[in-house]
Amino acid sequence: MSHGLPKEPPEMSTINRQIRLAARPVGEPRPTDWEHVEEPAGQPGDGEFLVQVLCLSIDPAMRGWMNAGRSYIRPVEIGEVMRAGAVGRVIASRHSGFAVGDHVSGTFGVQEYCVSDGRGVTKVDPAAAPLPTYLGTLGIPGLTAYFGLIEVGRPEPGQTVVVSGAAGAVGSVVGQIAKILGCRVIGIAGGEAKCRMVVDEFGFDAAIDYQSEDLRKALREHAPDGVDVYFDNVGGDVLDAVLLRLARGARVVVCGAISQYNSTKPQGPANYLSLLVNRASMTGIVVFDWADRYAEGIAQMATWRAEGRLKSLEDVVSGSVTEFPETLMRLFRGDNRGKLVLKIAD
Amino acid sequence: MSHGLPKEPPEMSTINRQIRLAARPVGEPRPTDWEHVEEPAGQPGDGEFLVQVLCLSIDPAMRGWMNAGRSYIRPVEIGEVMRAGAVGRVIASRHSGFAVGDHVSGTFGVQEYCVSDGRGVTKVDPAAAPLPTYLGTLGIPGLTAYFGLIEVGRPEPGQTVVVSGAAGAVGSVVGQIAKILGCRVIGIAGGEAKCRMVVDEFGFDAAIDYQSEDLRKALREHAPDGVDVYFDNVGGDVLDAVLLRLARGARVVVCGAISQYNSTKPQGPANYLSLLVNRASMTGIVVFDWADRYAEGIAQMATWRAEGRLKSLEDVVSGSVTEFPETLMRLFRGDNRGKLVLKIAD
Repeated sequence: MSHGLPKEPPEMSTINRQIRLAARPVGEPRPTDWEHVEEPAGQPGDGEFLVQVLCLSIDPAMRGWMNAGRSYIRPVEIGEVMRAGAVGRVIASRHSGFAVGDHVSGTFGVQEYCVSDGRGVTKVDPAAAPLPTYLGTLGIPGLTAYFGLIEVGRPEPGQTVVVSGAAGAVGSVVGQIAKILGCRVIGIAGGEAKCRMVVDEFGFDAAIDYQSEDLRKALREHAPDGVDVYFDNVGGDVLDAVLLRLARGARVVVCGAISQYNSTKPQGPANYLSLLVNRASMTGIVVFDWADRYAEGIAQMATWRAEGRLKSLEDVVSGSVTEFPETLMRLFRGDNRGKLVLKIAD
Repeated sequence: MSHGLPKEPPEMSTINRQIRLAARPVGEPRPTDWEHVEEPAGQPGDGEFLVQVLCLSIDPAMRGWMNAGRSYIRPVEIGEVMRAGAVGRVIASRHSGFAVGDHVSGTFGVQEYCVSDGRGVTKVDPAAAPLPTYLGTLGIPGLTAYFGLIEVGRPEPGQTVVVSGAAGAVGSVVGQIAKILGCRVIGIAGGEAKCRMVVDEFGFDAAIDYQSEDLRKALREHAPDGVDVYFDNVGGDVLDAVLLRLARGARVVVCGAISQYNSTKPQGPANYLSLLVNRASMTGIVVFDWADRYAEGIAQMATWRAEGRLKSLEDVVSGSVTEFPETLMRLFRGDNRGKLVLKIAD
């Protein structure tokens, strides 16, 4: 079953630079919450292969993984390499299914090299789409948008769909799919530039700048008949404002709450009784639950992408793995547009 | 179509005492928010009948009806007779479908006499159940419990169902139906006496006294595998505590939030992201949406009642219609056990 000896074994001296979790942050992660470690890159055993990590996915969910306690996935332990989705290239293999030179996507962590047994790893085609796209539209964020919107949001043609974090990796895909499905789509984003991008690049019908506009007033204008589907990536005041505009039978998809992740005292939606008034639902999603349908989602989105109906936008920061902590903070400052990726090798 | 002349026309001098809304309350309703009016009882026109109101339903939802603004039902206007469900007796009729002596249930308002055209009015049988039961288990609270639990809570045999306001008109029925459906049922109520009643009278598996117990700790003990269905009548801290114990795929039924109705600054569920972690949903219900299936619900509950599997408990206060404002406050103080009814005539 093995490919036998690796074709290009890495030198024993190859250094694997890593970012490990040093402490559980209180509020915003600080530089002291991270540890920079260098160790020799691992050697693949039988049935394993070695990946050189090329691009790291920088995700809001990372903040949750740093906390102790029960969640949808186990926490990253103190001293453990920080969890991260990534794409990379196989540089040594003793696994029958992965050959040297294959490009692969998986949870390789914030490090330069990763030994894998292939579980949870998929091959990607760098000729079909740029590698960062496999961390965005054709990766976990795209799949989150696809299944969350279609399976839980259940939008119908002509309905009004509102998306927060509309310029982000998930939100931009949600809005574009909703448009493809025949909905009226309103994005909420922070700042004029992002709002312009949401309308001009991603084709939303309208965008609301929550930083400079009166959100409730803008929602009344843009969604006069109420909001049928709200896909929430941010929580906080934005969620509360949209709750007040729900249409009868509305579906609120709770995908994330980036406004709350660094809060030590999270803010609950004070207007949640709008769910009662409007016979509406608020449902949490975790993309892993559709893992057995990922191929279907990827295939559909790749088709839309090839047809020019689904645009990808990646915000690629080039740098070494040691720049991960600072890059992560860009997400919480809202500095990114589209999927944030840290490219650590070519 | 008409029965012709009414058999027992009320005297023109019959006085109809009413409670009207005088002002919109801020926080708890105060005596000055009500106006006591006396006017002659109305005379039924063609296709109408006159009801003498016997029992008034005292409901948490009344607080919401006193507020201006969009809700699931239009607000009671200033100067209007306060809305109330009630049972009464037809004492004059020019309607072919309702005869003098019929007992009827409908939204007759907080007054002694009401002229009705029969819309939204159903006949009830005083020989089959006491009249107050038609305002409780065999009325709107029972139907709310029945459809909310079965259609939105969707409990499965062996699952854990938690109900707040467990000693109340809705909660006591929710728990009993969940038991009939084969669930493990935990009630949350305020005070030892109510908790005893929930277990001893209504047959719940356990009760938690939120006033004296550590709710989170008690939930850990009583629901070690998590809560599959939470039927919430109270909101606030109780909702937040249960959210932390949700099982994967849990359904939270938002029926009411009596802890918040008098609040000028409602408290949102800070732990709502538990919905995401657990792929859970929180869905608001309004019983009116099942109006075309009321007969089905009443028939099923009457059968269970006749079999001794569904107990009714009404907390009947006898007094004049002028005691309505004070009786309503008993609800918010949590003084009632079971369905609170103000009996204003025999």
